[in-house]
Amino acid sequence: MDAIKALTAEVSQEIQNMEVPKFPSNLYDPIKYFLSLGGKRIRPVLCLIGHQLFDDNYKDSIPQAIAIELFHNFSLIHDDIMDQAPLRRGKETVHQKWNQNIGILSGDSIMIKSYDYLIQAPAQFLPELLCVFNTTAKEICEGQQMDLDFETQEDITVADYIEMIRLKTAVLLGCSLKLGAIRGGGSKEDQNNLYKFGESLGISFQIQDDIMDVYADPDKFGKTVGGDIICNKKTLLMLRLQELATPEDKLLLESYFELTDADEKIDKVKALYEKYNIKEIATKEMMNYYNAGIEALNNVSIESEKKAPLKEIAEFLIQRES
Amino acid sequence: MDAIKALTAEVSQEIQNMEVPKFPSNLYDPIKYFLSLGGKRIRPVLCLIGHQLFDDNYKDSIPQAIAIELFHNFSLIHDDIMDQAPLRRGKETVHQKWNQNIGILSGDSIMIKSYDYLIQAPAQFLPELLCVFNTTAKEICEGQQMDLDFETQEDITVADYIEMIRLKTAVLLGCSLKLGAIRGGGSKEDQNNLYKFGESLGISFQIQDDIMDVYADPDKFGKTVGGDIICNKKTLLMLRLQELATPEDKLLLESYFELTDADEKIDKVKALYEKYNIKEIATKEMMNYYNAGIEALNNVSIESEKKAPLKEIAEFLIQRES
Repeated sequence: MDAIKALTAEVSQEIQNMEVPKFPSNLYDPIKYFLSLGGKRIRPVLCLIGHQLFDDNYKDSIPQAIAIELFHNFSLIHDDIMDQAPLRRGKETVHQKWNQNIGILSGDSIMIKSYDYLIQAPAQFLPELLCVFNTTAKEICEGQQMDLDFETQEDITVADYIEMIRLKTAVLLGCSLKLGAIRGGGSKEDQNNLYKFGESLGISFQIQDDIMDVYADPDKFGKTVGGDIICNKKTLLMLRLQELATPEDKLLLESYFELTDADEKIDKVKALYEKYNIKEIATKEMMNYYNAGIEALNNVSIESEKKAPLKEIAEFLIQRES
Repeated sequence: MDAIKALTAEVSQEIQNMEVPKFPSNLYDPIKYFLSLGGKRIRPVLCLIGHQLFDDNYKDSIPQAIAIELFHNFSLIHDDIMDQAPLRRGKETVHQKWNQNIGILSGDSIMIKSYDYLIQAPAQFLPELLCVFNTTAKEICEGQQMDLDFETQEDITVADYIEMIRLKTAVLLGCSLKLGAIRGGGSKEDQNNLYKFGESLGISFQIQDDIMDVYADPDKFGKTVGGDIICNKKTLLMLRLQELATPEDKLLLESYFELTDADEKIDKVKALYEKYNIKEIATKEMMNYYNAGIEALNNVSIESEKKAPLKEIAEFLIQRES
């Protein structure tokens, strides 16, 4: 894990050193603020590792790594507005601390800034880097729109849900690795296998999020355990339950949606999850994506020991408790 | 004007033929809708002319022309949210017709799409095209932020105001021409002179907007004449008046800000404009920028007759009545 920690520190330092203009302060102070909130910086680290697999000069991919982190932060700032979220990483969101217009505009600016970094590469790399990045950027917007649509949509299938989390979250992990691999000189096939690894890992990570929201250790979990149940969120667990439940149990479940006592609601929904083995089903689905990711990684045509950091990240993400 | 009309038709056709995905419809329908509202398409036409000055294959710049128009449309969609504007070109704005979240997200998507078009050029052009485009994109956000800040700011100078309209509007006209000139193979000096022409023209255009808002022929003007006065907007005319007025007249002006009868308010503010020759002063400032633009155009090192379409556009913009 030391190699990963070192890369994370390097990326964090770069972001901290980033030159952000002073004027207009209402545009740029929010950007500085939001970047200072930190985060795992997992995406830029994946980008650097993606490069390192094929070439030692991984520092050449630092601009692209930063570009991805900036794009990620843009999407968080705008998502926070759309979700009316007051907090991000325990601190006030931009629209909450300043106002909504400033949230929109500083989000726009940080997205443009991400292109500033992305294009810091020799010209011959630009068409490929930009094509992958743009495709991913559009997919992330599509995923967010699907997520917004799901709030009022009734007939969501598990396939719809997986597609939503794939677009909203997973593709950016794949993109991070692929950009590094492009800049590092990996073959097309290796690039695509790394993308597949990142994408599959992203999906399994999101499914695990859904599982943990119900079954995490409250002492170690950062959020309220059962939060998704309380707000009737259509998670993978809920969608599988709705698929498997008898008509009677479905009616029962619908009546639970109206419960106002949080503990009672969580207990009753969990009892249904238990009845239909939902935790096991979801865990199996998570592991399927995880294994598909590991298989794609195994297919990357480089020495196995070079893949160790990516396997570590995969295991870390899957074993986390918060 | 026939050449310009032909280019406008060509650009409009390209935009109409643009492939927009079908799903998620709440993301892409608004984009199709907004692009169908039309507009003068002046920016993409400038881009094509910028190319044509140096090279006959102006069609090579169509992707960059479209990129600029898409970016412009992105900024309109987000500005409309920030200004809470219900109408754009006489039709409902995106956030009004759908909702605010969809406005934010479809705006984001159209911005990303603009990069899709921008990068449709041989790799050796990309660094320059992207650098100019990104710089302009960031400046437009800065201009919009200054405009938002001005709403609650008291001590705005004319220089601040000019800087705001330069960033918010004028730089994109300069950028349009410059992108075309880059792709068309113009020299650095010619690129910069064309940029200067577009930028100066943009500033004079905005000043003229301020003048017309007060003095346009109501039968030909698309909006309410005096609209800026009614809502106490800090236009160039107003800022110059505040600069020149005696302390007594400034107090008088401040009392007019409170008037609720629109006609009375317009008449009284106009009387002060007259007392201090504000229309003449503003017209002179507009003409200064216009002339600086023409001078920059004259300095472009190509045959004079090739510049005719740009001179036509400049004259058209300055003589318009709506």
